[in-house]
Amino acid sequence: MNYSMIFYIIGWILNVEAVLMIPSVVVAALYKEKSGVAFAAVIVFSAAAGLLLVRKQPKNKVFYAREGCVTVALCWIIMSIVGALPFVLSGTIPGIIDALFETVSGFTTTGASILPEVESLPHCILFWRSFTHWIGGMGVLVFLLCLLPLTGGGYHMNLMKAESPGPSVSKLVPKVQSTAKILYGLYILLSLVELVLLLAGRMPLFDALCTMFGTAGTGGFGIKNDSIAGYSVYLQSVITIFMILFGVNFNVYFLLSMKRPKEAFQCEEARWYLGIIAASTLIITVFIRGMFPSFAMAFHHAAFQVGSIITTTGFATVDFDLWPSIPKMILVMLMFIGACAGSTGGGIKVSRALLMFRSVTRELSLTLHPKMVRRIKFEGRVVEHEVLRTLHAFIAAYILIFAASTLLIGLDEFALVTNFTAVAATLNNIGPGLELVGPTQNFGLFSDFSKLVLIFDMLAGRLEIFPLLLLFNRETWRKF
Amino acid sequence: MNYSMIFYIIGWILNVEAVLMIPSVVVAALYKEKSGVAFAAVIVFSAAAGLLLVRKQPKNKVFYAREGCVTVALCWIIMSIVGALPFVLSGTIPGIIDALFETVSGFTTTGASILPEVESLPHCILFWRSFTHWIGGMGVLVFLLCLLPLTGGGYHMNLMKAESPGPSVSKLVPKVQSTAKILYGLYILLSLVELVLLLAGRMPLFDALCTMFGTAGTGGFGIKNDSIAGYSVYLQSVITIFMILFGVNFNVYFLLSMKRPKEAFQCEEARWYLGIIAASTLIITVFIRGMFPSFAMAFHHAAFQVGSIITTTGFATVDFDLWPSIPKMILVMLMFIGACAGSTGGGIKVSRALLMFRSVTRELSLTLHPKMVRRIKFEGRVVEHEVLRTLHAFIAAYILIFAASTLLIGLDEFALVTNFTAVAATLNNIGPGLELVGPTQNFGLFSDFSKLVLIFDMLAGRLEIFPLLLLFNRETWRKF
Repeated sequence: MNYSMIFYIIGWILNVEAVLMIPSVVVAALYKEKSGVAFAAVIVFSAAAGLLLVRKQPKNKVFYAREGCVTVALCWIIMSIVGALPFVLSGTIPGIIDALFETVSGFTTTGASILPEVESLPHCILFWRSFTHWIGGMGVLVFLLCLLPLTGGGYHMNLMKAESPGPSVSKLVPKVQSTAKILYGLYILLSLVELVLLLAGRMPLFDALCTMFGTAGTGGFGIKNDSIAGYSVYLQSVITIFMILFGVNFNVYFLLSMKRPKEAFQCEEARWYLGIIAASTLIITVFIRGMFPSFAMAFHHAAFQVGSIITTTGFATVDFDLWPSIPKMILVMLMFIGACAGSTGGGIKVSRALLMFRSVTRELSLTLHPKMVRRIKFEGRVVEHEVLRTLHAFIAAYILIFAASTLLIGLDEFALVTNFTAVAATLNNIGPGLELVGPTQNFGLFSDFSKLVLIFDMLAGRLEIFPLLLLFNRETWRKF
Repeated sequence: MNYSMIFYIIGWILNVEAVLMIPSVVVAALYKEKSGVAFAAVIVFSAAAGLLLVRKQPKNKVFYAREGCVTVALCWIIMSIVGALPFVLSGTIPGIIDALFETVSGFTTTGASILPEVESLPHCILFWRSFTHWIGGMGVLVFLLCLLPLTGGGYHMNLMKAESPGPSVSKLVPKVQSTAKILYGLYILLSLVELVLLLAGRMPLFDALCTMFGTAGTGGFGIKNDSIAGYSVYLQSVITIFMILFGVNFNVYFLLSMKRPKEAFQCEEARWYLGIIAASTLIITVFIRGMFPSFAMAFHHAAFQVGSIITTTGFATVDFDLWPSIPKMILVMLMFIGACAGSTGGGIKVSRALLMFRSVTRELSLTLHPKMVRRIKFEGRVVEHEVLRTLHAFIAAYILIFAASTLLIGLDEFALVTNFTAVAATLNNIGPGLELVGPTQNFGLFSDFSKLVLIFDMLAGRLEIFPLLLLFNRETWRKF
């Protein structure tokens, strides 16, 4: 294991995080809030530690998949711990586990909160909470790749593979660093467009910024106690559309920006994703029609909740825990399907669900004709054996983690639906679940132990399990 | 598709079923019950139809995996319809869907009932209900293989593969028919031993027979409204032990009968299975200790319920829906794990769970060393790629059917836990779930549509999904 290289990258992460906290200090200064001091202190600490670690470039540049996974997992953990300090130091979330839960929930773009209400919090704290979504959405290490003055080596790809969501990473352009830059460029552009549209709907700048951060990262921290319910229908519609847009595979936007619309529209995953959204919205609309004054309003709220859940954002305009059984069941299923690979959304991902479905139909054919050779196709190409093997291991690991987590948080003696949806909401990086963790509730009721389990689940969900599991694998740390 | 062969085998199944109904007529005669007439009528009808179909052997003996799967699926469906007729004709279960649900639940060894109480039923009906478990436990077509005067051909193996539970069928001896005979011999022997032990505990002969049928087939139909709660601790203990024994891979008994105890004790699946039972029982005992007068009684009931659920039998001595969260969660997980492959139990099977776990650990190794070749081992042998592919397709199909079923029965507007555990209890062939389908409740509350969905799930669970799915696959019926 190339520890010097790992520490070097962790150092850079600390530096970057210090820089990323500066806007919060500015917000504190503007609103004349004392909590700004907490941020300033953490900035000094983080930058000092970071600069210490990056003093000199390591000579040994060997950086395999092993180092990539470990680095990504460690970076996310350290980043979360440092990110939690302002909450603790400012006294807004005094408990360290609570603060860590909130920060991990932010960076992993989950949006599950332990706070019963948020409107009394200082602006700088609210800003930082939402900003963590925006940082975590695209990935911090991908961000680092755009900046780092490092040259050569396979570690770019290994880092990006470990941090990017989805069954396989496609390099848009031959150089990984250029790919990272293009992705971040598109991300910033889409974010700015949303910001402008929100401001056009007369949303105050502070609200618009925080809401945009949450939408872009598909996190779900709100700055109002009623999440998005208090905003106008126009603003809610803008948010609906942008939640859905940020759940689309970014390859589509890349192809569009390259003026290759035909290829963009052929993206199978995005088409299925939009199809699922349309079908779910229509079915739910029919079932909740009676709860709203008009069909249009029922459709509006159905679309918002569907967009919020499938992209794993977690904003809410209504308390869907009060909806009938079928709409609730559909939402629970969307929680698992999740958004497209290569987007900022979480969950199992549409492409994985499609590949699972296709492996079933292939098996049926093979049962009929055992000697036949039949390949699974996706996005017009034959899916390699390796991708399927990793997919299946992912599903297996997902099920095992899900079961173990539900069992462990069961120690708190809450009902099954609460436990089940709490794990679903964190492992899929959504935010709200049902019953005691429903959209109007929060995760504060759990014990510290359960919170740690859910913190693990949020990180496992964001990093797609394996990088995090590797930390607990003896083989990872073995010399060879 | 070789239809003449398929009809021929269906004919034999009808003949066999007519014969298997004779004991119920005898019971009716002994207890002087009018319902015996219903059985007599069905016997005449079934035998007439059967004899018509088996008049002459088909010339075309071509019988591929395709024919095997279709035959098994059709046989189970036809057998269930014919088996439901006595309920309808005798007026004990007038609704045809209800009667079908009860019969499918019997043959698939699920044990989920739509009856609110059973003690008022005639003895011959109770006998038939329990006897279907015993028939379904080992499989009817495997039974047919022992009897059928057919010669040669690969269809023996194809039939057995389609009907036997588990990821792969091992022929104990070179000839499939001999394997089938050995398995049935062991099955009858174990059943008789249990019967003797139950009678030794002064259980009435009728009760002992029906209870033995349920235990051996790992079905859960009781003949008392309180299931097994009213029997003595001795009898409950005998049932506990035999439920667990019938969940063991029958290969173990075969090896023991061949005086190869060393190999028998090396069976990895059986060891894990017993280990899981021991661990679950101990943990549950600790959590329910306070609900019982002594540690021994808590252990006794914990062991009974763990044995009943992991083997997917479904008998109950207490209402475990009233237990704390952790014991309930453990039971729900055991529902999914299920018993050993090659036993009469249902569920996903311990061997599949183990293979899933190993594919995760292998993936971790491969993430560390992408170029390495690492094979998954099971029972001392390398697991072939084909077995893993089928396993993964099975898990995917299982998840898809689970999700679709939960959604469809959600139309009845019951709560999530009821829907979720109703599907879990039927797809895994267990019987009781939680809440509205808990051990003291029944499935009568569902609509006919939901009952059809659950009937599908029970058959899918017993036949391990693919044979049943193939019936709905266009490719199956295509000429080529």
